Order: sequence, then structure tokens, then C-alpha cells
Amino acid sequence: MSQGEFDIIKQYFERPIKGDQGVSIGIGDDCAILDIPAGSQLAVTTDSLVSGVHFFEDVDPYRLGYKSLAVNLSDIAAMGAEAKWVSLAITLPSVNKTWLSEFCRGFFALADKYKVQLIGGDTTKGPLSITVSAKGLVKKGKALTRQGAQAGDLICVSGALGDGGLGLAVKLLADEGNSLQNKQAFIDALELTEPRLTLAQQLASYATACIDISDGLSQDLTHILNKSQCHAQIELEKLPLSAAMQQEVKLGNISQSQAWKYALSGGDDYELLFTIPEHKLSAFKAHLAGHSQQHALACFEIGKITPLSTASSQSTGNTRHLMTQQAISFTHQQQPVVLDNTGWDHFK
Amino acid sequence: MSQGEFDIIKQYFERPIKGDQGVSIGIGDDCAILDIPAGSQLAVTTDSLVSGVHFFEDVDPYRLGYKSLAVNLSDIAAMGAEAKWVSLAITLPSVNKTWLSEFCRGFFALADKYKVQLIGGDTTKGPLSITVSAKGLVKKGKALTRQGAQAGDLICVSGALGDGGLGLAVKLLADEGNSLQNKQAFIDALELTEPRLTLAQQLASYATACIDISDGLSQDLTHILNKSQCHAQIELEKLPLSAAMQQEVKLGNISQSQAWKYALSGGDDYELLFTIPEHKLSAFKAHLAGHSQQHALACFEIGKITPLSTASSQSTGNTRHLMTQQAISFTHQQQPVVLDNTGWDHFK
Repeated sequence: MSQGEFDIIKQYFERPIKGDQGVSIGIGDDCAILDIPAGSQLAVTTDSLVSGVHFFEDVDPYRLGYKSLAVNLSDIAAMGAEAKWVSLAITLPSVNKTWLSEFCRGFFALADKYKVQLIGGDTTKGPLSITVSAKGLVKKGKALTRQGAQAGDLICVSGALGDGGLGLAVKLLADEGNSLQNKQAFIDALELTEPRLTLAQQLASYATACIDISDGLSQDLTHILNKSQCHAQIELEKLPLSAAMQQEVKLGNISQSQAWKYALSGGDDYELLFTIPEHKLSAFKAHLAGHSQQHALACFEIGKITPLSTASSQSTGNTRHLMTQQAISFTHQQQPVVLDNTGWDHFK
Repeated sequence: MSQGEFDIIKQYFERPIKGDQGVSIGIGDDCAILDIPAGSQLAVTTDSLVSGVHFFEDVDPYRLGYKSLAVNLSDIAAMGAEAKWVSLAITLPSVNKTWLSEFCRGFFALADKYKVQLIGGDTTKGPLSITVSAKGLVKKGKALTRQGAQAGDLICVSGALGDGGLGLAVKLLADEGNSLQNKQAFIDALELTEPRLTLAQQLASYATACIDISDGLSQDLTHILNKSQCHAQIELEKLPLSAAMQQEVKLGNISQSQAWKYALSGGDDYELLFTIPEHKLSAFKAHLAGHSQQHALACFEIGKITPLSTASSQSTGNTRHLMTQQAISFTHQQQPVVLDNTGWDHFK
């Protein structure tokens, strides 16, 4: 390896801070020093991407740089916060200039889009992995948590579901051959996910709970249901599917039921899942329609929060721990249906 | 593996927040939400520890948990900040309950000592590595940077140097057999390093620049010299050596010159290195002597900041990039001496 750690940081990661981004001291000291405006709270999240687990070893470095930031910004969005700063810890088996340049190009493409500043990190040698810690600001007391959903609230998502999960399946199956017409669109959905930061900042006065869908709608909705202690009903025909997914169903390349399974448990969608009182929906939609970035502000109602059924799980302490199978019921054209619907869990 | 990711987080990492630590929302949502008091700035640092690079695969998990936090808290101390919150991203090849319990015991032993709250993180599967992101508070405008040292300032360190580096050498040489009498003390210095947070908070009104010594005194001092654009003179006989190190020298197990080399470039000391105007030293020492935690507040003067010599490096742009060999001169009993003194650099 030809370059020292400090040179790598200087050449690839240290960039001038643009405008007044609250960065008092950036990269190049023992810590970054940040200004938090009065009336704001700090939102902090950390996510790791490990080679061979979260991405393929031969992944395009531009897309890896992009996605390692995107999944973290998605968590910031899920709190209704504004993304501001990010730290990057990258472990590399060796220094490959082309690879590093491309990684940074993807990382900074997304960072620049949302005016997020890289303020520090660590460069180490070892098996390829990336840990990003993102920080954002949210008005005091206005963070959207997983608790707060109430029976009667509508369940909404910010965009099409299932493409990311299908993209992963396409990559895993690789040359096994299938007749899908839109393979690249599904891979793009997996690798170039859009964090819903623009929508996130419109939710504060309307949503009662919010989460981002990283492990599949069913599993992530169950987190809301557990924290909010309620149940949910999802109408399958309302699950938003992309034009690409709909075409595959139409062509018979995948069944309607498979499409729903990808939408419910494929994971890697990074759309927002949020609940909103029914009487606020029309005002919310009018609010979105009046926004200058309307194209980035989709909202699909897919079901309803329901009360905890008395026959459900045992009480453990103060709250009940719900399982997906108990907590979510599915209907298709008003008829109950049963689906196998598990999400991702790294240690199972 | 028998336990899911969410169970691991719940069982090992989720603990009740004690007292008012500014944690509005802790582990268990998409982000943690933190309160930053008016008049304070946020200090943020991130460090990764990778198996086989920063620690041996068979390292005692208690000590690994302890050290992965310690090196980050040391960076918080180096800014003169108070440590408050920490995120932990841990990548594990498998779930070993005994190992995880011990890791957490070490991690939380240090966290509790300094009232640091774990507020989030990520648990993933893969080659063992740990990335900690620590956050602290510092009074607005009072962060101690690497820039600010001026010719005439005294150079001080917070404790004995070289034991950590010698501890690493002992572990690397393993059974090759040597006659050192204090092997365990050196290994302890390497693995159970004390972040100098108590001293750090006493420095604000006195120190002009500060850094923590992770890569060796010479290399870390050079960072201060580069940012402050000055040179330095170190008096070898003033380098503080532990009782254990002094005994090894006395017994002839290592030479005096080897001891100094460990002190200058061994790395892994995690003592603070700071500069202080000469006229403030006696007031500073009196201040430390009056502090209730006096035992944790050592200060050793080891040399002086000197002006940039005109014969030194080429100007590159506005500032000069100094090399250790040019920037630091060494004396022994007022006589100049020459030492080979390089620190650690992960990519060389």
C-alpha cells in the first residue's frame, strides 16, 4: 500500500465546509465541534455495512458509498429530522485509488444533495466494512418515534415497496436465469435508495409515529405496534408496487402473491412508514400538494391501526410483546388472507 | 447462532438511563434524541478497532470492551470536553454469550465511571470489529484544538509514556522469551488505558493546544506543530517513565535509549499532550493541587515550543507541512541528540 492514513483522509475525505453548516471544527482534530441551535435537539444514528453480509464484495464502489450514507440518512428521516452531519469509519483491506475515488463520489453525491457535511471518522486496515454515524436536528419535542400510533390512525408509506428485496434476489440468483424484464431497475432500487428526508420534514404536525422500512414492512410495522401497543390491518391491494414490479406480475414472471411478499418482507426499501389520524389526512395531502418539491412527497394509505385484540399475546410486565403474526392482519378485497411474512434478522 | 439481533440489543446493550443525562430518546428507535444545553457545543469522535489490526483475536473481551470505549473518550478529553454519550457498532462472527457479557462488562465499567450513556448503535454479523462514536459537551469557543501552541509554551504530558507500546511488543513477541520483570504491567497499560477526562476539564483556562497520544508522542506532537506552525524541543531526561519501565532499565532488561524510543513512538499511551504558556504553569499546578481528584491530575513538563526555524521545510500554500525529523529536536542534559522516531500509520 502506497499511501498513509493521514494522506488518505486529506486526499479523499477532507473537503471545505460550504456555507454556515454549524461546523465550528471539522476533520483534522481529535473531535469535530458542532453548533446546535437553541430550540433544536440532536438526532443520532449509526449503521454498519459489512462486505459479504450487507453488500457483495464486487459491489460498484460508487453505489456502496452512496448506500452507506443513504441507510443512515433514512434513519434521520424516520425521526422527522433534518440531516446535518456525518462521520465515516471505513475499514479497507488495501488502498485502491480508483475504488476510493468512486466510493467518495457516491458518498458525496448524496451528501451534497441533502447538504450533509462529513465532519470526521476513521480509516483503518482490515476486512472491508463501513460504519456511518449520522446526526440531524429536530425541533425540541417534535421527533417522530415508534410510539404514538393509535387505533383508527391510517398507515401510510412514502413509495413503492418490494423492488429492493427483489433486487437482492436478482443479485443472489445471478446467472440462474429468470425471465424478469426489469432486473436493473430492481438492482437500482436496492443500491440507489432515496432517503425520504424531504417528506420527513413535512410530517411533524401530522404523523403520530414513524419508522423507515429497512427489514420489510411487516417487521418494521411490528416495531411501531409493539411500542404503541396496538394492532394493524393491511389491505394487500393497496400496497404500492412500482411500474416495473407491476409489469413483471402482468407478464407472469412473478405471481401477485410473490410481489406482495417482496413488498411485505423483502427489506431494503427505505421508504418511510408512518401513521396519521384519519381526520388529518386531507389536510396533510393538501399540504404536500402545495410544497415546491411535490415530486418527492408521495403518500400511500395501505391500512389502519386497530386496537389490541383481547385474545392476543400474554402480558409481560407493563407492555405486551407482539409477534408479527398476531399483530398484523391482512385483507384482500375485504377478505382476510394469511401470509408468511418475516423480515431480515442478522442473527437468525 | 441462537439469538436474534433485537434480542442481543435488548439483553446486552439496552440499559435504563440514570438521572438526567440529556437523553430524550435512547436505544430502541431509529435515532437517539439528545438535549444540548445552551452555551455548549457538541464534540464528536469516531474510532474503529479491527480484529488482527488493533487487537489480537484472542483478546480478553472485558479489556476489548473497555478499550474500544477508552480510545474514543480519550479523543473527547483531547478537546477539553466532557464525555456524555456513545454509540456502539459491533460486528461479530457469531453470538457467544460469555464473550458478549464480558465485552459489555468492560465497556460499561468505563462508561459508568465517567457517567457516559450508551444511546444507540448497530449489531451486525461479520469479521470482529468495533466502531464507537463518542459525543461530549464543551463550553462554546473553549474547545482545545491542535492549533494555538506558541513559541515559548511549555510542552506537558499527563502521565508516563511508553508502557503501552512496550505492552504491545511483549504481546507480539509472546513466547520468544525475554527477561522483563513487569510484563503484565505493560500489557495492562496497553489494554486498560485511562482516558484523561478529569484532567481535560481543568485545561480550558490554561492550555493553548491539546492532543491525545495514540500514535506516539513524536507523531502526535508533530500534528500540533503542523497546525500551530512551530517547532519543539524535547528534553529526554524529562520524559515521564513508569516505575515498571524504570525498573527494567535499572535491571538492564531494556536500555535507556530503548525506553525513550517507546516513550516517543510506541503509541497506545492515551495520555494528553498539551501546551501551556510558561507564566501560567504555577497557577495551573496550584489549581490542580486544589482539586478534589488530585490523584487523577498529573502534569509533566517535557520540553518547549520553539519558533519555526528559517531553514525548515518548503512552504506549501499558506502553511508548511512539517516532518517529525525537522520539527522536533531532542536534547539530553542540554546536548542535542538524534533519535529515529516514527509513530504508527495504518497504511504504511
